[in-house]
Amino acid sequence: MKVMITGGAGFLGQRLARAIHEAGSLSDPEGNHKAVSRLLLIDTIPPSEPPPGAEVAIGDITDRDFLQPLFGRGVDSVFHLAAVVSAAAEADFDLGMRVNVDGTRAIIDACRGCAQPPRLVFASSIAAFGLAPPVIADDTLPTPQTSYGTQKVMCELLIEDCSRKGFIDGRALRLPTIVVRPGHPNKAASSFASSILREPLAGEPTICPVPAEQKLWILSPRRVIEALLHGHALPAAAFGARRTLNLPGLTVSVAEMVDALARAGGDPGLIRWQLDAATARIVAGWPAAMAPRRAQELGFTADASIDEIVRAHIADSHAQA
Amino acid sequence: MKVMITGGAGFLGQRLARAIHEAGSLSDPEGNHKAVSRLLLIDTIPPSEPPPGAEVAIGDITDRDFLQPLFGRGVDSVFHLAAVVSAAAEADFDLGMRVNVDGTRAIIDACRGCAQPPRLVFASSIAAFGLAPPVIADDTLPTPQTSYGTQKVMCELLIEDCSRKGFIDGRALRLPTIVVRPGHPNKAASSFASSILREPLAGEPTICPVPAEQKLWILSPRRVIEALLHGHALPAAAFGARRTLNLPGLTVSVAEMVDALARAGGDPGLIRWQLDAATARIVAGWPAAMAPRRAQELGFTADASIDEIVRAHIADSHAQA
Repeated sequence: MKVMITGGAGFLGQRLARAIHEAGSLSDPEGNHKAVSRLLLIDTIPPSEPPPGAEVAIGDITDRDFLQPLFGRGVDSVFHLAAVVSAAAEADFDLGMRVNVDGTRAIIDACRGCAQPPRLVFASSIAAFGLAPPVIADDTLPTPQTSYGTQKVMCELLIEDCSRKGFIDGRALRLPTIVVRPGHPNKAASSFASSILREPLAGEPTICPVPAEQKLWILSPRRVIEALLHGHALPAAAFGARRTLNLPGLTVSVAEMVDALARAGGDPGLIRWQLDAATARIVAGWPAAMAPRRAQELGFTADASIDEIVRAHIADSHAQA
Repeated sequence: MKVMITGGAGFLGQRLARAIHEAGSLSDPEGNHKAVSRLLLIDTIPPSEPPPGAEVAIGDITDRDFLQPLFGRGVDSVFHLAAVVSAAAEADFDLGMRVNVDGTRAIIDACRGCAQPPRLVFASSIAAFGLAPPVIADDTLPTPQTSYGTQKVMCELLIEDCSRKGFIDGRALRLPTIVVRPGHPNKAASSFASSILREPLAGEPTICPVPAEQKLWILSPRRVIEALLHGHALPAAAFGARRTLNLPGLTVSVAEMVDALARAGGDPGLIRWQLDAATARIVAGWPAAMAPRRAQELGFTADASIDEIVRAHIADSHAQA
């Protein structure tokens, strides 16, 4: 199988690439495990640690002259993770439209040139929901209140339609906030949700820009990689007429995260509470609780507890160090 | 006020232009009636009967070199009706994306150059709903099953976001099937819904491609023009955080339409029943009943009966003849 990962230099992209490399195979549309013969990471910057044997292509997915040749050699599966993140897409509307919407269109258009419609796993987001009820159901109307969320829902619609047309075999997964991300803060409005655990666990100070009572819908890096692979492995028929899924997650408040930090030996005193109105407003608009029945029935799972998430982060950090 | 109508050579565009010309004024954002100083009709073909004093611009709204100069002289209000219709957008995916999505983006981008965010009334469609429950509520999840419907919902999302950002003051109205359209059949899958009344009333034969028991959610041309003007007149605050509305309409079966035809003196024998699977499938996917409470509370209204619609069509035909 020939597998492509956009956003392949990102944290999730690289982690997914390692998982695919280690598995050595993915399921084909008939459910048979097939060896991965090509693993291509696409990004605007080079990945820091591409797995052995992976190809790397550096460029802009909205540039069709760059993208088309990459598809010319055949693609069976695309994990489309590349995106301008929430705060950046809010700050620069045109950049978000170009990368998040036009980039997805370019990927789909390139897929249309393939002999078989590639399986396309799309990283959507709970930012799809803005003015949402306290608990999001599978058929809750998306009312995004950010440009990022808007662009993600536009792409979901496109993926639904292009799957119906047979251009792709699409699966759009609405990712919870991913906690704990390794590395450094980024421009995502959710960046703090990792920083308030990661930095104190490393003995570093950090800032929390939202109130302690703010609740979040979260999933660990381990589980989200499992979800991306499971979303790829499922047969198209499992999705029925809807290719978009709310992923399972865990509802935790910032205060509960800080308690888990303390239980894991981190110092909550390293967190400076400094409200940032813009970030707090974006985060407050995200859903904090979901009832993702379809995804649960399809076998997607969440972490058991915030403590499990913190322990997994510590184990992963030691493995990487 | 400077008013622009895209799709200005279309049936609704020309009728709206006449209505605005006759009124001579529209309300400004503060609710004051202001004289219309410029009425510009944009389309790819010339309007057959532009109202006196109206300007006409022939070109492609996706061509920014064409569009930008039209906005250069100032625009207060845009009625964005231009679209590739349902069956055509289904037959040519790229054409639909280009005109329906990119065209709307180009209009919004042009609006961003205006000193004040123009009021933008967008003709969306009940094609937003495909796999829908028997009665559509205001917060029913759109699940379009056509590329046309998908593209309309993508534009709604864009209009919501660009209104939130202050680029435009948008209002997206989901139009029912418009019955009775004058003139000739077009490529809309709903074209038959007018033809089965219009042609027999004119003594002409016609074809019905869907079963007699098919139910439709319809609105007359008179009422839809009222709705477009009312959607424009409402203050932004009336919409709250959602700029998209399901418009009121009337549920009628094809059989009931044929009964009304007979009551109005038309000959149902002129209808040849010849099922077209593709058209029937598209139409069966549209909602046949809605509970459009928000629009009703905001003062939008539907026709009283199918007989009223048929009588209005006969009156309008005589006025035009």
